[in-house]
Amino acid sequence: MSTAERAPILLTPGPLTTSPRTRRAMMVDWGSWDSDFNALTADVCSRLLAIIHGEGTHTCVPLQGSGTFSVEAAVGTLVPRDGKVLVLINGAYGKRLAKICQVIGREFSTFETEEDVPTTAADVDRLLNADPSVTHVALIHCETSTGILNPLEEIAKVIEAHGKRLIIDAMSSFGALDIDARQVPFDALIAASGKCLEGVPGMGFVFARSSALAASAGNCHSLSMDLQDQHAYMAKTGQWRFTPPTHVVAALHEALTQYEEEGGLAARHERYANNCQTLLDEMAKLGFRSFLPAAIQAPIIVTFHAPKDARYTFTEFYGRVREKGYILYPGKLTQVETFRVGCIGQVDAQGMREAVAAIAESLREVEVFEI
Amino acid sequence: MSTAERAPILLTPGPLTTSPRTRRAMMVDWGSWDSDFNALTADVCSRLLAIIHGEGTHTCVPLQGSGTFSVEAAVGTLVPRDGKVLVLINGAYGKRLAKICQVIGREFSTFETEEDVPTTAADVDRLLNADPSVTHVALIHCETSTGILNPLEEIAKVIEAHGKRLIIDAMSSFGALDIDARQVPFDALIAASGKCLEGVPGMGFVFARSSALAASAGNCHSLSMDLQDQHAYMAKTGQWRFTPPTHVVAALHEALTQYEEEGGLAARHERYANNCQTLLDEMAKLGFRSFLPAAIQAPIIVTFHAPKDARYTFTEFYGRVREKGYILYPGKLTQVETFRVGCIGQVDAQGMREAVAAIAESLREVEVFEI
Repeated sequence: MSTAERAPILLTPGPLTTSPRTRRAMMVDWGSWDSDFNALTADVCSRLLAIIHGEGTHTCVPLQGSGTFSVEAAVGTLVPRDGKVLVLINGAYGKRLAKICQVIGREFSTFETEEDVPTTAADVDRLLNADPSVTHVALIHCETSTGILNPLEEIAKVIEAHGKRLIIDAMSSFGALDIDARQVPFDALIAASGKCLEGVPGMGFVFARSSALAASAGNCHSLSMDLQDQHAYMAKTGQWRFTPPTHVVAALHEALTQYEEEGGLAARHERYANNCQTLLDEMAKLGFRSFLPAAIQAPIIVTFHAPKDARYTFTEFYGRVREKGYILYPGKLTQVETFRVGCIGQVDAQGMREAVAAIAESLREVEVFEI
Repeated sequence: MSTAERAPILLTPGPLTTSPRTRRAMMVDWGSWDSDFNALTADVCSRLLAIIHGEGTHTCVPLQGSGTFSVEAAVGTLVPRDGKVLVLINGAYGKRLAKICQVIGREFSTFETEEDVPTTAADVDRLLNADPSVTHVALIHCETSTGILNPLEEIAKVIEAHGKRLIIDAMSSFGALDIDARQVPFDALIAASGKCLEGVPGMGFVFARSSALAASAGNCHSLSMDLQDQHAYMAKTGQWRFTPPTHVVAALHEALTQYEEEGGLAARHERYANNCQTLLDEMAKLGFRSFLPAAIQAPIIVTFHAPKDARYTFTEFYGRVREKGYILYPGKLTQVETFRVGCIGQVDAQGMREAVAAIAESLREVEVFEI
């Protein structure tokens, strides 16, 4: 067994476990100026765009850095300096969106619900009626703080009816949950390489409405994050403005090929939904309760209440499960003690059953019986 | 022969050719929250800091994205909003530094010399005498537009004598040309993973004077690029604030091990200097003239005058050399037709001789005789 095969399975919201084939795509060094690499970038962008059926309306702009860099780039580029953003919050990533607006100096207001309460279209309708100065609404599609799914399509329709623009952070849902640009009106949808597409981390991308992107010159607070400039240069030269993460791009290209071979979005969704249901069922057998009701649980990551047993500590539990080959994720709630288990990456239902078996064994070892 | 071994040698200023061992380090998926990965990051930072002897005075802050992202982050974080930057320019990267100041809204002035004329300490002394409102001076150590080396140490001493702060873009020189923080006073030195350390591209790092970094909270125009926030979070948790490019970090870690095995900076410098001299000698035999005089030529990348022969076109020449296994780099000068050949990456003097043989053969094929 190679080192790679012995590495633990990542049950985390990304970085996640990739296929050996995806990682092997990083064994080649690419010249960032070379036409072969330009073709690779162009192919990645057009295949990404096809996933949302955005051909003709939207432009895919890749960006170096983590997904958050792309979120900041989308807000900075597409919201004019005199715009105002309504940020919908039910977790840490919504809070981060508001923080971005604050730091880069865009006016904003926030609407926050509890972490187990989705924002509704009625909320957004009421908020937009109350404040006509809002130009853009920003929300997190699947908030990985808990794994909650917000009702994107209904909210998008309300925003369009008000004549406002929508910015979607779809970091953890893109590629696994259907978002069709022909049905869901938005100015920006943001995701990254190392999530449901099962690439490695190191780049994000923004699907920007082409007309909005074309009108955005001079908006951005940052040179590196200026998506309009990034796109204009790429359209002219085929190249990234600044050094691209060549190996990460090559891995994403290979991951997209496997995504298509698996059957695209429908198949990816089915595998993850199956992973999620298997996880919930197997964990329920051990007595674990999930934090969210099924109706608002996205098949991306599940938050479980921590065991009540006084002998339980997350650190000890994490370490024991890790020894058995699985990396869990800590909880992110302040009021309730929880931990999280991801359902995404190169893992199937059998893998989820084995992970829960490792969890059960770890609890027995530390004599945690009261779940 | 595997695909990786057949891939062309990149004679470019980064991305460059890495070792198979460095690329193999990317065959493992790391959990970004896991203590093993935190240890990897900490080790990378402390080994980087040792290269400049910055322990005790400086802090190494890694950042996602290309090197330019780290340059923007350094200026945005370390120059107060009411600061003023004097930017020293003799090429495209100096111009980019000025553009960063402009876009992020820092007051700045520029001093530009011809692309084959280094900035001198006397220039800087005169400029600082003339404008006491300057708080920071920013320069490019080795400007890869041409390959010119600016006299860093002398300039740094003048800046210190004026009580001003220095920001060094050492992207293409760090790791190969000696910069000792005990001798060269600076507030920020910026470099990246995919240059002379021979890692893969995807992250940069800034050596920030610890006292300046500690005093910089609230300066930055960007959340993603706030080095003070990035460092504070890392110091508290051991983790990157936002998803790190895990595979890129692992590759850099492995590249640093090989750097130390090779003999560190002295050995890396010697190999590159030898590559550069071999390249100059072998190209001279073909009749090629280098654009820069030897005294200001850094052993990183060499600019050559293009052949005078009417049958020469860069595109045809590039394609023929590429077929023979070497990727060259286009010229970046507007007044003179040139091309560039890098001396850095996993290549030695024998490799440079073979590259020049491929260049000679390509010229014969297209019947370019007048050099």
